[in-house]
This record gives sequence, structure tokens and C-alpha cells, in this order.
Amino acid sequence: MRINIKKNSNVAFYIQIKNQIKDMIYSRQTPKNYVLPSERDLAKKLDVNRSTIVRAYQELKAEGLIASDIGRGTYVIYNNAAVENTKPRNFVKSLFWHEMYSESSKKNYDDIISKIMNIDGNNRIISFAGGIPAPELFPREEFEKIQIELLKSKVENIFSHSPVTGDKLLKKEIKHLMLNRGVRIPTKEVMVTSGSQQGIDLIVRTFINVNDVILIEEPTFFGAIQLFESLGAKVVGVPTDEYGVRIDILEYLINKLNPKFIYTIPNFQNPTGVSMSIERRYELIGISKKYSIPIIEDDPYGELRYDGRQLPPLKALDKHNYVLYLSTFSKVISLGLRVGWIIAPEGVINKLSMLKQLTDLHVNTLSQHIICEFLKQGYYEKHLERIRKQYLLKRDIMTNELKRNFEGFKFENPKGGFYIWGKLPNRVDLNTLFKKSIKNGVDFVPGNFFYKNNEKNDNFIRLNFTYPKKDEIIIGIKRLMDSFDEIKSISND
Amino acid sequence: MRINIKKNSNVAFYIQIKNQIKDMIYSRQTPKNYVLPSERDLAKKLDVNRSTIVRAYQELKAEGLIASDIGRGTYVIYNNAAVENTKPRNFVKSLFWHEMYSESSKKNYDDIISKIMNIDGNNRIISFAGGIPAPELFPREEFEKIQIELLKSKVENIFSHSPVTGDKLLKKEIKHLMLNRGVRIPTKEVMVTSGSQQGIDLIVRTFINVNDVILIEEPTFFGAIQLFESLGAKVVGVPTDEYGVRIDILEYLINKLNPKFIYTIPNFQNPTGVSMSIERRYELIGISKKYSIPIIEDDPYGELRYDGRQLPPLKALDKHNYVLYLSTFSKVISLGLRVGWIIAPEGVINKLSMLKQLTDLHVNTLSQHIICEFLKQGYYEKHLERIRKQYLLKRDIMTNELKRNFEGFKFENPKGGFYIWGKLPNRVDLNTLFKKSIKNGVDFVPGNFFYKNNEKNDNFIRLNFTYPKKDEIIIGIKRLMDSFDEIKSISND
Repeated sequence: MRINIKKNSNVAFYIQIKNQIKDMIYSRQTPKNYVLPSERDLAKKLDVNRSTIVRAYQELKAEGLIASDIGRGTYVIYNNAAVENTKPRNFVKSLFWHEMYSESSKKNYDDIISKIMNIDGNNRIISFAGGIPAPELFPREEFEKIQIELLKSKVENIFSHSPVTGDKLLKKEIKHLMLNRGVRIPTKEVMVTSGSQQGIDLIVRTFINVNDVILIEEPTFFGAIQLFESLGAKVVGVPTDEYGVRIDILEYLINKLNPKFIYTIPNFQNPTGVSMSIERRYELIGISKKYSIPIIEDDPYGELRYDGRQLPPLKALDKHNYVLYLSTFSKVISLGLRVGWIIAPEGVINKLSMLKQLTDLHVNTLSQHIICEFLKQGYYEKHLERIRKQYLLKRDIMTNELKRNFEGFKFENPKGGFYIWGKLPNRVDLNTLFKKSIKNGVDFVPGNFFYKNNEKNDNFIRLNFTYPKKDEIIIGIKRLMDSFDEIKSISND
Repeated sequence: MRINIKKNSNVAFYIQIKNQIKDMIYSRQTPKNYVLPSERDLAKKLDVNRSTIVRAYQELKAEGLIASDIGRGTYVIYNNAAVENTKPRNFVKSLFWHEMYSESSKKNYDDIISKIMNIDGNNRIISFAGGIPAPELFPREEFEKIQIELLKSKVENIFSHSPVTGDKLLKKEIKHLMLNRGVRIPTKEVMVTSGSQQGIDLIVRTFINVNDVILIEEPTFFGAIQLFESLGAKVVGVPTDEYGVRIDILEYLINKLNPKFIYTIPNFQNPTGVSMSIERRYELIGISKKYSIPIIEDDPYGELRYDGRQLPPLKALDKHNYVLYLSTFSKVISLGLRVGWIIAPEGVINKLSMLKQLTDLHVNTLSQHIICEFLKQGYYEKHLERIRKQYLLKRDIMTNELKRNFEGFKFENPKGGFYIWGKLPNRVDLNTLFKKSIKNGVDFVPGNFFYKNNEKNDNFIRLNFTYPKKDEIIIGIKRLMDSFDEIKSISND
């Protein structure tokens, strides 16, 4: 048996030895039962420490290639002939794929997001279910202009690969955008993601162990709850009031449960529409620092304010880098382009990018270029102004219809964002109403989806007012009320 | 204490009870030390089984809201005042983020993919490192034509959301494409992914538990090895020869290690360039069925054959649905658009799509439409023909340069794909050569990256011939040989 060790190699000696023995075994230079030199002899011969040989032999044993007996020494057990003699099983069978799922994916998630994404093509239904911007407000002309320019000047770039953390020019534009939100960061603290959903996913995969506790506002976005739970985190809800998350209860739960993260949507929260008060924001940052619990701040709707004064994101108040900030262009520019971003300390960005390269290499280049130009050429602010105006109109149409005609439906007028969160009278069975509404051609999200395990059901529903067209809002609310009346009359029978 | 149970609700009784008590506690209707009714009394009062109350109380205890003592009964312990009295810590500190990483991400991966993606902007270096198609061969005119048509006819669609499993028309085109590869499947067995890297990621997250064994060809694609290991799988290499993976050793390892999956790249394997022989393909399918071990077939290069006859993918030979098939448009059309696909049984597609919606909702819509039109309008075949011809030329330039001028470098001429896999003389230290090469302006991937833990280093290197321009290939190989000569002369000193 000849083994050569390269002393100047950066491959550990024991690995060099293991691999060379493995190659000999597989190439049948060492037949079955061939006795290997003793650990001591081989160590001496190769002029290495005996523990090096012990480790090499251990790994070969773990791979089932060698064995050792007292007396007999260490010998080769690999022999494919033995395998060839085993009888083949003669029946044809299908795999039971569902029995192979991993522990973490045994649980079935409600495919509510799939359902919302699949509403296309069913024109019969007016959808208040999605979190989708108005298709008729797409910056059509600007997009056309940008794409034609890009095809002319950069056709090789826009279809080629990009850096894992995102296109450099786009990151610079995001840095400027963040200045408008009161956040001053260098571009190396920015990472472009395939929407902010991917931002949450990357953070969760990088930080969360099974049974880690994450505190969430209750109710909150189902996509976040499901993602946290899919990795085995224990999600604990913190109640909210009209000023946002209840800080007293949050602090109590931090002391009791030692959570790993606090997840919050401070601006126009999904689904409640509530914006955290400025006092609460300062308190939350204070609590985060006091207990060294970092915050995941999810801010997809922050710039979509229709009434009142803009408030700074938590990240703007975060002097000590306790906040991982997520945002996206999905709600303002285009959902379909799938471009969002994370702001985090540089070390965290580097760690996240190691995972990002393994999950999908990088965000698609064409989308990044289109959005970069949209920002660079100054279309963003104008577009934002335009959609704010239109969404305000849509919100008012929906709230007016509800107030005027839908007695017993209680809700607060949201000052921004995408949703109205309202409560049906207690006597109404939400399930029955939901089925009836779908039958009547209107869709919404029942409130229980915004609680972990969908467990709470106090007759809230979420209505989106940005996606439907104005006349569809009127018709859709009418259908909702009709459904309500129909089941009421049944239960009165 | 008033609790109302909705008997016709689909929320379990114990959850209804738990939530109502929780609300009372948080709203301070039940002050600290308030004694709750006994389980028996409450069960009687609410007319439910006692075990229902037991469970509700258990969960409230787990959340730190109530406690029970023998004698005293069950009582409320929530009291935020206690927390307010704890002294704040007065020193400002930064979070030690790296101490918070999850178990699975504690390990640092080599960011080789990031490095390859970041080579842009360094024009000094000629890169043979990437797995990137030639930018100068992009179907520029076709892309322009398609995009302008899409902007005219479908501008609302191309920037809007799409279904989680992919655009319906694109899935239909992929179904047709698969027919050309000998695979007949319905569209419901197709799922569009953000490149085939995401395909592997989704499969691994759906199926792999910590310590599951995955058999891989050795050497193989580093992105797959890293992804498997990032989820705690035990990756075991199976040696390959000029016909592909060694079936005898594979079978031996199946018997020894009971693996969960076999991962293979049968066509123009990365990095070796070897295509599995047709006999081996049948044997592999046979082994997979015999032992009920499913195969992950990764086929990014299958259609890029420059010599010889096309071979069917494993999926075409797979009568019993044991193969999860992955492919991508990244190597043929555009890497930057990030569009790949999975073929799998319908139930598996449904399961994968539940995860897909949580990770990034869907593949970006614009890319899907561009690729769909590219296929539908019949550009794909013509484009394939064109790039095959050019890549053949590039391959021949590289192999000729190597054969003529680079004595001691041993390699087989690959019949297709993207790479030349060759061996440097043993006396050369690969690390020294690599550093010298970068200094001299040429980049490649050292062979050890294609082994788990980068542990094997027998002086192979991988050279990509598709990305560099023809003249760059000649200059780059010259630089490689110069680097080789320089370190040779040093070691001869």
C-alpha cells in the first residue's frame, strides 16, 4: 500500500490518507479482507501523528469501507459482489413521496398565498383578498421608455448575471431612497432580494433554530407567521391597540420567553392598517436595546400614506443597529418584478449573501435594471404621488360604501396602506359568509389567517382596496352585503 | 369571568377558551393573583370535557400567564409592574450578531459563487471560472422584438403577479420542450423556479432532515454540495469513471448508508464534462427502483452537445416517477433572467409550491413572459443551433491551445457542456498556481471545490470556455501557462 502525503498542501493529512485508501479500495487494489497496516505502523511510515491515522480509519469505518476486530486488525470490507447476490424485488411500486417529507415540511400550510396569486383568469370574482397594487396604475409609459433605452444601450448587461447582493447602481439608488425615509447607511449595508418575502426567508434561515421564540404583533401577515413556523420557531403573539404593539405586554413576554426576534410592521400594519405611534416606536427601540432583542422591521407600505404626517421607520431611530429592515418595490412599482431589499449591518449582509447565492444566485438582472432606471430618472416620487392620490380615492369609495350600506360592520379608517380591517357582527358565522361571498363573486381574507394556527376567529375580515377598480369596489361591496343579508335571513328563518 | 364558546366554530374549544382568558389577562380584567375557576368547575359551566380546560390552562402556563399550586389553585401571574421595576442596563452595546446565527448557518460556506458573480467590472481578468453563457451570443434582436411586442400587448400582465407554480403558457411551452427530450408529462407536473439552483433548494428544504444521506457523484457541482450540507445532510461521494457514476459502488453505498436521494448530472457533468453512458442510465434507473431511492437529476447542459448523439435524460427512462428532474434556461438563453423548472409528480409539485410561495411568492413575471414568447415563436431551436456552433469553436480553440502549448496538462475533450476538467502535473502546487494566475489576469476554479469540504486536491482544475471571447481564450491560456512556467522555475531554483 503506497500513500503519499503532500506536506505543503492545505488539505489535512488525515483527509489525504483517507482519500487515497478509499481510491485503492474502490479500484480494487485492496481486495475484500485485505488487512491494512496498524495505526501505529502507518503513522511511523508516513511520519505523522498516530491520531491522524486513527481519524482517517474512523472516517473510512463510518463510510462502511473498513472494519476492525481485536486480533485481526483493520481490514477492507467493501465487496460489491455481495450486493449483486441480493435478490431484486420483483414488484413494481410507486414511491410514497409524502412519507419522505422532512420534519419541517410535514406540516401542511394553507396555500392562501397561492390562492391569491391564482385569482387571475377568474374574471367573475372581484377580489378584495390580495395585497396587490392596481394594474391600471402601472407606470406604463415610463416602463416602456426605460426598457427601450436599456435594450439599446445595455442589452448585454440586462440579460447577464449580477452580483449576489444586487446590482451596484440599484443599491446606490436604494441608499438614496432610504435617506428620504430618514435612514443613512452605506451601500454595503444594502442587499437586493426577490421581494421582501425572500428577505424574511433569508433572515429566518440564517438565524432561527427549532423552538426559538419570535414575538409578533397579533394579528399579523400570514406569510411571516407561516415562514417562522416552517422552520420550527415558536411564534408568540403580542396584542396591539390603536397605537401599535402593546409595549407593556411585549416587555413581559420578553422576560418570560427570551425571544430571538421581534417582528413588526410599524407602518399601516397588515392586516389592521394601524401605524405605530411615534412614542411607541421610541419605546420599542428602547426595549430592543434594553434586552438585546433585535427587531425585524417589515415596511412594505411605509410610503403609502393618505392622511396625516409621515413617521420615521424604526430603522431611522435605531442608533445601535438592532433593526433588520425589509422593504420592497412590490407595493409601489410592481409586484411581478420581484425586487425588494434588506438593510442590515455589513456582517449580517455578508452572511445572508452566502445563503442567497445557494438559494437562487441573485435577483433577476432585468428587473433590477428597470427599477434602477425608474429611480435614477426621478419617476419614483411622481409615481408615488399619483398612486397615493388614486389609492386615497379607492379607500374612500370602499369606506363610504361600507359606512353607508353595511350596518354592523365596524372598522377604523386606515391612514395608509392597502387594507381595511373590520369586524362583522358576532352572530354571523364567518365561514358561511365566506362561502356565500365566493359564490356571489367577491373574495376577501377571513381574519383567522392572521393568527398563528389560524386559531383566532372573532369575525374580523381583511378587505384590500388597491387592486380592484373603482366600480368593482362598489359592486364587490354590494355582493358582500348581499351575501351577508342572505345568510342573515337564513339564520332568522 | 365570562367565557363564550361558539359551538359551531371551526376553532377548537380549548383555543377559544385560551384566547378569551388571555384577552382578559392582558386587558387587566383579571389582576395578578386572580384565581381562575378549577378545571372541573369551568368544564361544567361551559359544558365541555374537562380535558379541554386542562389543555387551555396548559397553554396559558406555557406562555407564562398563569400558574397553579396545590391548595391555591390556578391563578394569574401576569403583571407588567414587576417588569417595570427591573433596572435598565445603562451601558450601550452592539449586538453580537454572529453569536445569533442558527445551527445550520454556523458553518461558513466558501462564497465561490459570489466571487464568480462578482467578476464583472474587473476587465483585467479573463475568467474561465464561471458557468456563464457568452454575452455576445445573447439573442439580442429576438429579445428586443419580444419585449416591444409585450409592452404593446400585455403591459399590465408582464409587471403583475403570476401563479406560484409559474405562468400557465410558459408551463405549456416547457411541456413541449420536454417532449423533445423524450419526456411526456402534463403541465401540472411542471413548476417554474428562479433558476435550477432554486429547484435544488426547494427540493432539499422539502425533503431533507439533518443527517439524511445524499449520494453525489464525486466530483460534482459545489452549489449542490453546499446546499445539501447547509441543511445538515450527510453528503457521500460516489466515484465516477468515463461512463459516469460507478454503479457497483453506488449500490454498495445504498446498502450501507440507506441514502434519501441520489443527486446526478448525467449530461456533460459539472465539472468533469462526462456524459453518462446509456447503459449506466438504465442501470441507475434500475437501482433507484430496486431500492426505492429517488433521483435528483440536474440537467442544465443536456442540449449543449457538440459531438455525437443526444442521449435521453433519466427522466425519459423513468417509468415509475422516481426522478425529480431539474433544468434551466440559464445556460442556453440567459442566466440573468433566472428561470428554471422542476418536473415532479403532481403531489410533490403541490408540496414544493407551498414552500415556494413562502420563499419568494413566484418567479418574476417579466422573465417568464419573455422566455415563453421566445419558445412560442420558435426562436429556441435556432438559437440553440447557433450557440452550439459557437461553443464548439470556443471549445476547440481552448483544447487546441492546451494541447499544443501546455505540456503536462491532461484532459479529455468534452463532448458538450461548458467545461474542461484537467489535471496539472503532481509536482505543481495548485494554490500557488492559482494565486499566480489571478496576479497574471486569468481566473479558474481549483478542483477541490467540487469535493465535499473541498477536501480532495489532486491537482485538477475546471476551465469554462463559453464565457470568454475567442481571443480572450487564447490570451487566457497563455497567461495560465506563463503562471505555470513562473512557479515551475521558482521551484526549480
